[in-house]
Amino acid sequence: MGSADLPHRLEPFGIRSCEILSVGTELLFGQTVNTDAAHTAVRLSELGIPSYRQTVVGDNPERMEQAFREILGRSDAVVATGGLGPTRDDRTAEVLARVMGVPLEQDDGVLEAITRRFLSTGSPMTPNNRKQALIPRGALAIPNGHGTAPGIAARFDFHGEPRLAILLPGPPAEMRPMMDRSVVPLLEPFAQYRFLSRYIRVFGIGESRAETLLQDLVDRQENPTLAPYCGDGDVVFRATLRLPADRPEGEGTGPDAAGAPGPADLDRLVAEVVRRLGIHVYEVGDRSLQAVTADLLMERGVTVSLAESCTAGLACALLAERPGISAVLKGAVTAYDNDVKVRLLDVPRDLLEREGAVGAACAAAMADGCRSRFGTGLALSITGIAGPDGGTPDKPIGTVWLALSGPDGTVTESVRLAGDRNRIRRMAAFRGLDLIRRRLST
Amino acid sequence: MGSADLPHRLEPFGIRSCEILSVGTELLFGQTVNTDAAHTAVRLSELGIPSYRQTVVGDNPERMEQAFREILGRSDAVVATGGLGPTRDDRTAEVLARVMGVPLEQDDGVLEAITRRFLSTGSPMTPNNRKQALIPRGALAIPNGHGTAPGIAARFDFHGEPRLAILLPGPPAEMRPMMDRSVVPLLEPFAQYRFLSRYIRVFGIGESRAETLLQDLVDRQENPTLAPYCGDGDVVFRATLRLPADRPEGEGTGPDAAGAPGPADLDRLVAEVVRRLGIHVYEVGDRSLQAVTADLLMERGVTVSLAESCTAGLACALLAERPGISAVLKGAVTAYDNDVKVRLLDVPRDLLEREGAVGAACAAAMADGCRSRFGTGLALSITGIAGPDGGTPDKPIGTVWLALSGPDGTVTESVRLAGDRNRIRRMAAFRGLDLIRRRLST
Repeated sequence: MGSADLPHRLEPFGIRSCEILSVGTELLFGQTVNTDAAHTAVRLSELGIPSYRQTVVGDNPERMEQAFREILGRSDAVVATGGLGPTRDDRTAEVLARVMGVPLEQDDGVLEAITRRFLSTGSPMTPNNRKQALIPRGALAIPNGHGTAPGIAARFDFHGEPRLAILLPGPPAEMRPMMDRSVVPLLEPFAQYRFLSRYIRVFGIGESRAETLLQDLVDRQENPTLAPYCGDGDVVFRATLRLPADRPEGEGTGPDAAGAPGPADLDRLVAEVVRRLGIHVYEVGDRSLQAVTADLLMERGVTVSLAESCTAGLACALLAERPGISAVLKGAVTAYDNDVKVRLLDVPRDLLEREGAVGAACAAAMADGCRSRFGTGLALSITGIAGPDGGTPDKPIGTVWLALSGPDGTVTESVRLAGDRNRIRRMAAFRGLDLIRRRLST
Repeated sequence: MGSADLPHRLEPFGIRSCEILSVGTELLFGQTVNTDAAHTAVRLSELGIPSYRQTVVGDNPERMEQAFREILGRSDAVVATGGLGPTRDDRTAEVLARVMGVPLEQDDGVLEAITRRFLSTGSPMTPNNRKQALIPRGALAIPNGHGTAPGIAARFDFHGEPRLAILLPGPPAEMRPMMDRSVVPLLEPFAQYRFLSRYIRVFGIGESRAETLLQDLVDRQENPTLAPYCGDGDVVFRATLRLPADRPEGEGTGPDAAGAPGPADLDRLVAEVVRRLGIHVYEVGDRSLQAVTADLLMERGVTVSLAESCTAGLACALLAERPGISAVLKGAVTAYDNDVKVRLLDVPRDLLEREGAVGAACAAAMADGCRSRFGTGLALSITGIAGPDGGTPDKPIGTVWLALSGPDGTVTESVRLAGDRNRIRRMAAFRGLDLIRRRLST
């Protein structure tokens, strides 16, 4: 308990309900979809803090203040995002101070962090950025590893009742790590329940197919529960166990004296899901498909190279997201042009003329040529028709061939992907990574 | 004016403000991102109907009724989505009837449409589906071409004031066509203004720096207005002109007889912003930086290849998002390993040993080698330290060198980027695309 990077200065109380307030005129115009609210909602739900309402207002101090007052009149806590930037439109900290009835004060630690950030990048710091060091008296600053705006956490009395307000910056790249790293541990002692969740991540099987295989477990809806939710092309199931907030995670593993479900029941549910979905489960946990694939390559010490056509570097770029990958990733060739396939990957020109670039033979030749050029243990190739042009009745848009060349030979496979050009490219890249994963998992 | 498929039975009044209410427990849990609200907001903004607030509640009749009453106390209109399905959880129509003070009545046209739909698909119709034919007395049913739940449009008195409520089903595939085909024409005569917006997109200059250069224009807040909003690394300004709803867009270009601002004033504001921000403006419109760069290459017929190290294919993959790019994009080499830089890009090995892979000389050699291997008009190279390891006092994490090789020689530049590994990689890729854009823009 207690945050990794916050002095623990907020006295917990039991939060019966926490609302989400999103500040940003761009949300009112619909130019931005409110992913911050969804991310916050997921975390509150995982924490076992009930949330019954979300509100969006623009960068307008009167409407913001009105919204804060209404929310704090109804609920014990609020998590607000947006309006902490350096511009004059950014007024959330000022409005919260007014609602708390305290002045804004300069936080020297925050000012120092902002100054350091500007020094390190060499950009000039403007007076606007100094404003970001002002936080309501008595509040905590939450460090921002990806931008200048600190978050703010405040516990205060509102009409005689204890209230908690958390403010975070709006850009998801700043808000998400702050939420996960600082706010979740800060909120934990305020939760009345505790939820233990496991995420079971699946690739290469549709959501309805997976759900059919698990329908009886989803329908049961007891404790633990199993619920599907689907991203774009990858399917995730969440298994959740509800515990009273005061039962330590490690204490016992089965039903307790009163027969309430415990962590062993959660383990059993997860094992059953994994058994039913088999090789399609790439992770029980938080890692993405590219992270799992990269980790397998690193753990096994298998070097890899890539030859990409329609994905044009995307599969390699995804793999390279993982720190440390340079130990095994040697490089890649994007061969958009057939000439490049011949000259840099040694694909025979007559093969291309005879069978075209999208087929089993070309995919295999690309992977073999890549493996020998780069001298790697494995080489992956991806070649396909992403559209919007180039489809034929024989090879419609969405046709993708993949090959994986290794010491034991070369396997090829093909898929037909639906969607627009960039969905096809993204799904083809993931399919390629999954081909590596399946090879190394068996 | 008037809907394509609704009998025009609602007497228009001027809507000063319209709120958006989203109903759905899945939104409160964060499993679903609220794209319905964003879609509705875009349409309201295009219609010139101001919207100052959005609310999300779960499938709970008391909280829904409370939200409806609050919204209708503040605003002239509400567009609500969700809670119109066949299940017992779906109660939005019933709650609206209670707020209007009228009973639910069966709409025979709707019942017939639902029955027809079931006959055509062969699925059995359940008593729950009959419930969907119940709408508040005096309201209009809005046909649903993609599901069973009709939408509802009602004009009614609320505490003596005219109010408009629109209900639509939650699934985006049903809601969006209903919004665009039926609700937009229905709302048109209720709009008091019309908005013309232009988006000015900027790269290579921070949000605070850009805003300092434009502060007086942002502060003016007249008509047209200028407002900043920032994504991750790219900065966008929106210039917006408000016109009376009855002034056609094409009619005249300057202030009208009464001196009201017109489209020429919007053009002048945009031109002034572009003049002040200069080469940093990559687009006035909707295109991304990668799209603008790809379009410039295609328009000029300049072929291109890429040599990437830390970005590992990301810059090439971004460029390849654009349909048609295969006409000019030949390919790319990801040279993660120094050996690959030597063997596939002809970087002299002693240069690497002397100066390392992150520096002006290596970047230039990568770009030159790439250009000659691929035989392209331009070749871009990117080499840098993305972290989390590999930084030195001399070359800290975030140091990135870029080079662009062309017929007139090779330019190099370096940046210091802040953030984590993948932000550094993403920003380095964008910086590379921007280097091509700047070369082709001047």
